[in-house]
Amino acid sequence: MQRPNYPSGKDLLGADSISRDDLEDIFARAEQYLAEENEDDGSGDYVPAAPVMRRRPKVVATLFDQRSTRTRLGFQAAALRLGHQSLDVFDTERSRMGTSTGESIEDHIRTVEAYSDLIVVRSHTESLPYQIGRLSYLPVINAGNGADEHPTQALIDLFAIHKMRGPVQGLSIALSSDTRARFALSFVKMLRLSPPRRFTLCCLPGVPINPPMREALELLRNLGCPVAVVHDIRDTLDHDVLSIQMQDMSRFSHASLGSEAVDKELETEPFTLTAKKIIDANSDILILNPLPRFSELDVSCDTLPNAGYFRQVKLSMQVRMAILNRMLMGIPWAG
Amino acid sequence: MQRPNYPSGKDLLGADSISRDDLEDIFARAEQYLAEENEDDGSGDYVPAAPVMRRRPKVVATLFDQRSTRTRLGFQAAALRLGHQSLDVFDTERSRMGTSTGESIEDHIRTVEAYSDLIVVRSHTESLPYQIGRLSYLPVINAGNGADEHPTQALIDLFAIHKMRGPVQGLSIALSSDTRARFALSFVKMLRLSPPRRFTLCCLPGVPINPPMREALELLRNLGCPVAVVHDIRDTLDHDVLSIQMQDMSRFSHASLGSEAVDKELETEPFTLTAKKIIDANSDILILNPLPRFSELDVSCDTLPNAGYFRQVKLSMQVRMAILNRMLMGIPWAG
Amino acid sequence: MQRPNYPSGKDLLGADSISRDDLEDIFARAEQYLAEENEDDGSGDYVPAAPVMRRRPKVVATLFDQRSTRTRLGFQAAALRLGHQSLDVFDTERSRMGTSTGESIEDHIRTVEAYSDLIVVRSHTESLPYQIGRLSYLPVINAGNGADEHPTQALIDLFAIHKMRGPVQGLSIALSSDTRARFALSFVKMLRLSPPRRFTLCCLPGVPINPPMREALELLRNLGCPVAVVHDIRDTLDHDVLSIQMQDMSRFSHASLGSEAVDKELETEPFTLTAKKIIDANSDILILNPLPRFSELDVSCDTLPNAGYFRQVKLSMQVRMAILNRMLMGIPWAG
Repeated sequence: MQRPNYPSGKDLLGADSISRDDLEDIFARAEQYLAEENEDDGSGDYVPAAPVMRRRPKVVATLFDQRSTRTRLGFQAAALRLGHQSLDVFDTERSRMGTSTGESIEDHIRTVEAYSDLIVVRSHTESLPYQIGRLSYLPVINAGNGADEHPTQALIDLFAIHKMRGPVQGLSIALSSDTRARFALSFVKMLRLSPPRRFTLCCLPGVPINPPMREALELLRNLGCPVAVVHDIRDTLDHDVLSIQMQDMSRFSHASLGSEAVDKELETEPFTLTAKKIIDANSDILILNPLPRFSELDVSCDTLPNAGYFRQVKLSMQVRMAILNRMLMGIPWAG
Repeated sequence: MQRPNYPSGKDLLGADSISRDDLEDIFARAEQYLAEENEDDGSGDYVPAAPVMRRRPKVVATLFDQRSTRTRLGFQAAALRLGHQSLDVFDTERSRMGTSTGESIEDHIRTVEAYSDLIVVRSHTESLPYQIGRLSYLPVINAGNGADEHPTQALIDLFAIHKMRGPVQGLSIALSSDTRARFALSFVKMLRLSPPRRFTLCCLPGVPINPPMREALELLRNLGCPVAVVHDIRDTLDHDVLSIQMQDMSRFSHASLGSEAVDKELETEPFTLTAKKIIDANSDILILNPLPRFSELDVSCDTLPNAGYFRQVKLSMQVRMAILNRMLMGIPWAG
Repeated sequence: MQRPNYPSGKDLLGADSISRDDLEDIFARAEQYLAEENEDDGSGDYVPAAPVMRRRPKVVATLFDQRSTRTRLGFQAAALRLGHQSLDVFDTERSRMGTSTGESIEDHIRTVEAYSDLIVVRSHTESLPYQIGRLSYLPVINAGNGADEHPTQALIDLFAIHKMRGPVQGLSIALSSDTRARFALSFVKMLRLSPPRRFTLCCLPGVPINPPMREALELLRNLGCPVAVVHDIRDTLDHDVLSIQMQDMSRFSHASLGSEAVDKELETEPFTLTAKKIIDANSDILILNPLPRFSELDVSCDTLPNAGYFRQVKLSMQVRMAILNRMLMGIPWAG
């Protein structure tokens, strides 16, 4: 049964879901959670301004058909801190839901939506989050779908930049990534909401830039943001911010399916960031990385003041709380 | 150590646990949760009439040695919405409890009952829920035991009928099922509490009716309810309600152990309900199905107003909340 | 990045973490939870003295690389009853954290600490809890590390003795155990805080006593506590308390890795406690056992008034609640 009348803007499926106002709303909510945490003196006393549970707890369902701990646990922890709950509804071993007994995704989602208030989806396919968004009247979050988008990680990076270096408009921003990476696409697309002073993409030479990424870069350019492409990480070190990811995802496709150790030796040198390169460039660039890192980011960077990725992990909590809280209250995305 | 003095009526093990008053109490509680949900305007404001957590949260343990997502997640979600918590205490992979290191069920239950307030059991054996009920002073729910009973699913069907077609006494009710199915037995046994105007069983011809089912039908007859047996789903379409399940469970026994795809082609045609059959019969019968469905219920039915099974899934939440809440408050079953 | 400035005493890693005052504080908190439970009349009415959730719920992370249900579920249930939450952050099957993709433990812990407020660690290695304690600013509980320590189980035994036989100082205490067992070491080391009237170790003859255990016994002796060593369980039955465990752990090393049934026939007779031995000795000794039991403790003991191990399991809840609550409030250990 196809159900036609959904509230518009209920889902967060890609960077295009989000308007400039939405972005500022998420930042404001995340700031509030941060302030609240800083006020917590651990004494266990009552905080009159922030009563936690005034209604029945909501249930956040996580439906991940692709390996992830960071994102799944991150959304689960955010739900719990909001005073809500989470249920993992993808459980191949013990499940009779879904494909293991041939149940259709339509029936599956009908059950999941009866048990929960919001669905967080990660999939190795591009189509699943969109399909679930259409099938269910519940709000749906795309937490990474194949080679398409990963909008919540992009929001985390933007909030981390905002907190650690101020408004994006005044900054020069670089991104080192495989141009097929879903986070990279969401990040560049989301920059349209607040184009930086200039933007540089660092990617493998001799590999064509992925068409959706090319389109997103073109859009940035049309908004008046100077866009450059470089092929050595050292050429990004005069920027204010560098978001760095692995360059050749295809080498890791097996890792997403099994538990084989990843061969870190294979990363080619021009795309590996080391403390020496940062110090040689006398750079005060802010380094972001979604973790887990591979060979793109050497541990020698960890003790430099440039290292923003550990604080970024902590800020991810408040951003995910902001996203969940907004969507559980039924506030639509206006993008 | 056998412990003799348990409160009488602490467990919900079969249809016989429940009295007429108990059934009405469950309906009243479920109605209240429904009303509360409808009042929730999503604004996040305080609801004075229904404060949620006034005491330490209770812990509902799920102990399932048989595959299930729907029932397990359903009870977990119901516990969470009540402001309580759940723990899955059957975890073969990482567990040292239970048989993996040779621990006896007696010792196992002693630990589970130290950590929780109520135990929900599903088992491929008939005996386990009864055994746990005897071993523990905690209330125990049988969520399906071998070929015996599945009383909570029967309560869900009865409440769905009550909500969508009114009091059972005034209705003609049909059930299409393998006569060995545990849900079917619990459902027919529970109809004794409020016998319908007439009852029809649709089952495979040439297969003897399972003795416990025969007994339950005889009891209904003795209460003055006309009982018929038919062998084609079309012969049920003049009833007010049809609860439909697969006919030949033995074909699915392997599915309960592994994750092989089920061959949907094998269901024989007289027991498959399609939109065409309903429309040809000009029937306004209410269709119920516990999901996941197999070939007994064609997706062509989904868009008809007769399709009650998706709303039934949603109503299962309030019924499970009612069952858990009642038992966690220590109210005994009087059946 | 090594981070130097941690609050002193944030972790509970071994028996040496705990001072005499700490022990009394844990007992007092556990007593309070017990009293509160006994006051609970199940009526569901508001309890003014013990409001549960006044702040955002805390998240207790469990990181177990070794099989355990009892301890993991025990800490999870204790967190839930405190009105807090738990997240299992070790999940090899679906995880990209940790070693499966080559992520370092340092990066792993950075993420775990961003999502949680306290980390409970069990490991087959001795080093992991210490390493995590150094890496994280969060409080860390060692829930058993290789052949080293298991301090929370020792606290549970001491509280069980305190509740069932009174202050340890006035009692004669026996321990039957492999001298390499981590619980045994933590238990004997913790007895230094309140040395019993006399102490007896029952262990295999002809096997040298493990050096750390020998040291702990020597410390007890130096505190004025008479210490004896015997090789037959019957020689302990004139004591007030016997904590009994399996004698030859090496036979069980395979069990900790797989799910093979343990051969109970191999336990040699002098170390197996039976009802007959207790009755023959006319003993009113209190029997403790952490469960799961192996052949050291015959089920014939279960119906004797001496059997304290089932009540011990129940008391473990209040002890774990006391430990978690204290550490989540940031109270340091003074040991």
